[in-house]
Amino acid sequence: MNEIKIHSVGLRDGLQMEKTVVPFDKKLEWIDKLINSNIDIIQVGSFVHKEKVPQMADSDDLFIEINKKYPNRKVIFSGLVLNEKGLERAINCGVDMVCFGASASETHSQKNTRMSVNEAVDRIIKIAQDTIKDGKMCQVSVQSAFGCGFEGDIDENKVYSIVDKYLDAGIRLISLADTAGYANPEQVKRMYTNIKAKANDIELACHFHNTFGMGIANNYAAYLAGAKYYESAFGGLGGCPFTKKATGNVATADLIEMFQNFGLIKNINNKEIIELEQNVSDYFERELPGYVYKVGNIKH
Amino acid sequence: MNEIKIHSVGLRDGLQMEKTVVPFDKKLEWIDKLINSNIDIIQVGSFVHKEKVPQMADSDDLFIEINKKYPNRKVIFSGLVLNEKGLERAINCGVDMVCFGASASETHSQKNTRMSVNEAVDRIIKIAQDTIKDGKMCQVSVQSAFGCGFEGDIDENKVYSIVDKYLDAGIRLISLADTAGYANPEQVKRMYTNIKAKANDIELACHFHNTFGMGIANNYAAYLAGAKYYESAFGGLGGCPFTKKATGNVATADLIEMFQNFGLIKNINNKEIIELEQNVSDYFERELPGYVYKVGNIKH
Repeated sequence: MNEIKIHSVGLRDGLQMEKTVVPFDKKLEWIDKLINSNIDIIQVGSFVHKEKVPQMADSDDLFIEINKKYPNRKVIFSGLVLNEKGLERAINCGVDMVCFGASASETHSQKNTRMSVNEAVDRIIKIAQDTIKDGKMCQVSVQSAFGCGFEGDIDENKVYSIVDKYLDAGIRLISLADTAGYANPEQVKRMYTNIKAKANDIELACHFHNTFGMGIANNYAAYLAGAKYYESAFGGLGGCPFTKKATGNVATADLIEMFQNFGLIKNINNKEIIELEQNVSDYFERELPGYVYKVGNIKH
Repeated sequence: MNEIKIHSVGLRDGLQMEKTVVPFDKKLEWIDKLINSNIDIIQVGSFVHKEKVPQMADSDDLFIEINKKYPNRKVIFSGLVLNEKGLERAINCGVDMVCFGASASETHSQKNTRMSVNEAVDRIIKIAQDTIKDGKMCQVSVQSAFGCGFEGDIDENKVYSIVDKYLDAGIRLISLADTAGYANPEQVKRMYTNIKAKANDIELACHFHNTFGMGIANNYAAYLAGAKYYESAFGGLGGCPFTKKATGNVATADLIEMFQNFGLIKNINNKEIIELEQNVSDYFERELPGYVYKVGNIKH
């Protein structure tokens, strides 16, 4: 059985599309709840233009506050960074784990960064090397690794070649992100297996969106291939609430429920996550996509 | 790669809890749509007390009608049977494939049949042997095979011993049904692998409810262990619409989407299923749990 770490990205990926800006104190309340659950990693926010993404404008202040509040924590606080400026902010406010990535899709890369895939990969590698130099835990992802909303299929070899560049640069914690939710479990199992075989000390992370309902199955497939870090958002939040396309992440309580039913991650109290997801649902005054928070966990 | 057959149980498991009785002609329209999709097996209805389950009261007439309408069909029409009387009705109206089962949970068995598990298994075996004698395709299930809403965990050995009895009686098409939705993919993979090893000519079917959001992952796990028949309901219909507990089956379009992304079941046109699920959603005037019918299938 592989070691499993649960990484909640609800405060970042879950919230970034929400129009209602969640106040600082409410975010702190949700972070407390996540910490009470004993979850492994909490993504507190991203370091992006404050005007462009008002939902993330308090990221620096949040990190400063929780670093004061939890000086002797076991939990890891992560933050998403897009560029050198973001990395500087992240380092300055005491992020434990810095996350960033480049897309395997040329169109997605151009739209997001105005760079080709190769240019974006080279730049991300430099940022990663700076982060590692600073002694920070650092996770580097390949976005749109399983398909792209703009381009459709993405050549697997393109993903492998980006991973090879990451490995050559000394990066060891690598994530594949299914930005569009296009992944299927056979593809996930195959790709994680192939990538895991590339280095003995590689650690794999995964990030699946649930657009086509494959999220949990894809997490399971990544588990079968030996992934260690699993990202999810509370209640399955994420994506745009104004279309019928439910493009949120897998719900944290659902993911934990699955692994706990395997007999793994016994340290996490899923009841805290379920209460959190109910709280988030109440806050946004709508039902969230998650299953377990609605029905409670399985009684054994 | 194992051969995959998709069995739509939407007209039976999907509808049986719906208060709005779907008219005969609407059911025929939905059957036409399923046939147009080239799906492998359609469960048209169940043979139960007409007064107790008005939604299923037209099962005999439906079979008679579609037997007239599709005399040279490739599709298989299945029906669910609970007892000898039901089997007689099924045979009389020309069902191609008869489905029935016994529960692995004593409480569930007593509530459903007023018999112990052993008594119910013995009775089901007699019905199966009569069905096989009549030259009918016959699928026999173990219900509550992965856990029970009343009892919680179910001893795996109890499930295996029921399967052994089925095998001893000459039954070769065996289904495990996750009546409560308690299954997790590791358990599914393990149990299907163990059961598949029991006989060279055994054929395995699966039926997963989505209560805790594990349905697609469980189908994938059954696939990894070599299951052949996969049940699902259009739109993920099923369970009680008056609670927040979404206990429907996996949505047919989602299941097909997954297998088609594996490069399997190329004969089925999922667009027809997606249109059907939109039609069913319109008919019941509510959003159904399925994902793919809302967003369309993945463009490659």
